[in-house]
Amino acid sequence: MSEKFNITVIGAGHGGKAMAAHLALMEFPTVLYNRTADHVAAIKELGGIYLESYEGGPRGFGNLDLVTSDIAEALEKAKMVMIVVPSSAHADIARSCAQYLTDGQIVILHPGRTCGAIEFSKVIRENGCTADVTIAEAETFVYASRSDGPAQARIFRIKEAVPLAALPANRNHLVLDKIHQVFPQFIDGGNVLQTGMNNMGAIFHPALTILNSGWIESTHGDFQFYIDGVTPSVARVLESLDRERVTVAASIGIRARTGMEWLKLSYDAVGEDLNEAIHNQPGYYGINAPPTLNHRYIFEDVPMSLVPIASLGQRYGVAVSGIDAIIKIASIIHRTDYWRRGRTIEKLGINNLSTDELIHYVQEGVLGTA
Amino acid sequence: MSEKFNITVIGAGHGGKAMAAHLALMEFPTVLYNRTADHVAAIKELGGIYLESYEGGPRGFGNLDLVTSDIAEALEKAKMVMIVVPSSAHADIARSCAQYLTDGQIVILHPGRTCGAIEFSKVIRENGCTADVTIAEAETFVYASRSDGPAQARIFRIKEAVPLAALPANRNHLVLDKIHQVFPQFIDGGNVLQTGMNNMGAIFHPALTILNSGWIESTHGDFQFYIDGVTPSVARVLESLDRERVTVAASIGIRARTGMEWLKLSYDAVGEDLNEAIHNQPGYYGINAPPTLNHRYIFEDVPMSLVPIASLGQRYGVAVSGIDAIIKIASIIHRTDYWRRGRTIEKLGINNLSTDELIHYVQEGVLGTA
Repeated sequence: MSEKFNITVIGAGHGGKAMAAHLALMEFPTVLYNRTADHVAAIKELGGIYLESYEGGPRGFGNLDLVTSDIAEALEKAKMVMIVVPSSAHADIARSCAQYLTDGQIVILHPGRTCGAIEFSKVIRENGCTADVTIAEAETFVYASRSDGPAQARIFRIKEAVPLAALPANRNHLVLDKIHQVFPQFIDGGNVLQTGMNNMGAIFHPALTILNSGWIESTHGDFQFYIDGVTPSVARVLESLDRERVTVAASIGIRARTGMEWLKLSYDAVGEDLNEAIHNQPGYYGINAPPTLNHRYIFEDVPMSLVPIASLGQRYGVAVSGIDAIIKIASIIHRTDYWRRGRTIEKLGINNLSTDELIHYVQEGVLGTA
Repeated sequence: MSEKFNITVIGAGHGGKAMAAHLALMEFPTVLYNRTADHVAAIKELGGIYLESYEGGPRGFGNLDLVTSDIAEALEKAKMVMIVVPSSAHADIARSCAQYLTDGQIVILHPGRTCGAIEFSKVIRENGCTADVTIAEAETFVYASRSDGPAQARIFRIKEAVPLAALPANRNHLVLDKIHQVFPQFIDGGNVLQTGMNNMGAIFHPALTILNSGWIESTHGDFQFYIDGVTPSVARVLESLDRERVTVAASIGIRARTGMEWLKLSYDAVGEDLNEAIHNQPGYYGINAPPTLNHRYIFEDVPMSLVPIASLGQRYGVAVSGIDAIIKIASIIHRTDYWRRGRTIEKLGINNLSTDELIHYVQEGVLGTA
């Protein structure tokens, strides 16, 4: 039960460093991979990462088995591979990993955003991976954490219940059994459409950023993002996008949580409407806006969260004009085409599936076309 | 040449009061109409309006011939009817006027926004007007003015050159000859598609408001609208909408001015891009944002400016997805369907026209369908 298996963490950002240090402190043989060697030079020299955390939380120096920028070396002994990078990098990571993955390995996206596991599976297959690997995704990242220095990380909070699903979902138990030896916090997330459609950042991040564009750029984000930035009109837009997301989910047989339900569940924050509920979440006080519009709230959440939701909506006959409007304005602001860069159902290879076939695919892993 | 003909001003807001007072001071027999009698009770009691203005500008007490809420009485003697109401009220005014308009009268919309004259003409015909009336529209309002009290008005500036066009355009000279006896500032605007497509508020007002939604509602507009609210990303959206507008204009044979050209022409403000040019317009400094999102920058400019531009674009094959995104978000914010409420080509009765027929219509007034 408490076998200390080999774990590789891919990505040495705010999240990856915290996770690697924590795993090492829990005595799992831990490897940390980062594509850019410079970025992990200090960790490599020290041989590990100093971890700080909340009162009673994990802390100390986590000794790493290996710090590397060689993906083959990084994956060699891993039983479990934790992908802790922005979802816009998932496809690149999948391409790098494809040839080195081996039978029995479990790969978990922390988190998948929307359709991350589907994308990862498709890309590794297309790049020559024939190993029997299980791909899974978390609905959100298990920590609130921050990098405090080149070889320092800090965990503010470990979330209590994070839904996780494997692709196919009939392997959920396999992944949960294994990961529970490390993180008892993960719970059964149903399937990857459920974890993907419950991606709340899709609703909260891009629209809230865009509807405060002038304020963010004029003040470099010097206002409270949720508390000042969410007003009755802004909340009305978020609610409208949220309804579209929940309706798209329903069209593929998924009962997604509304933003209101999620605030209640996660923070016990309630209210007459989304505006009130957000202002009733004490944790939002003091969180400033992003300092610039060149931020993952747009360049990650638009293509990796809003585009797949809108793309599924269009396929199965749901009006997604609010989400589409936000994608369009984001595309203008960043002078790019987020539809083209995003996870559309065509790119994910699921455009020809009926809803039954789609569910069959995420449950059983069989891509049958009618 | 200096015959003092009868003029009726419809609307007693910031603009209508200033115009009525100014006309009266120029000794034109002037009638002021407002639908709501209460709104003009003070003026009626005094028998006129006190006008203040810039140094050297018109000032004094303008004696009105009549102040009324009876449209029949208001129109009875008028040679020229000045419609000085938000464009979202044009259709209602047209319905009220229809039966009382008489041969030879000139009706001018100050301003028409986009397709105002086309809408007005259609509505009066549909409501039983058979008189030979000439409808015209100004590209913008001739004054910058404000109401200073119940019977007080103030003119800050009289614009130097305001394009004006009649429907049909072959009557431009007739309208200009007449109005030049009052306002030498009006110039030939080509045709009503030109005045309508050069409507700069369509580009500057709704998107700038929406991209500052949180800031406006959090501070009640306590920041400089153009100076703080326009930032590089916001300007990029305005530029993109502006390109769509100019492209729609080109698709119907109109060479519309770009936002940059308009800033140069109107204010001699130039720059590398729209962001710079706007910040190089000294007149924008000190102008605060609207205090609320419940403002004509959305409820007037979206249905009466953006919708007709987008509708023409869709008809003649121009991509208008940026404008469409703004219309959609405005619709969500105000919980209404601005497409349904707006001036679509179907509502304007010009949906079956080829571009040649459309030009023929605005030039000659003949609604021929192929």
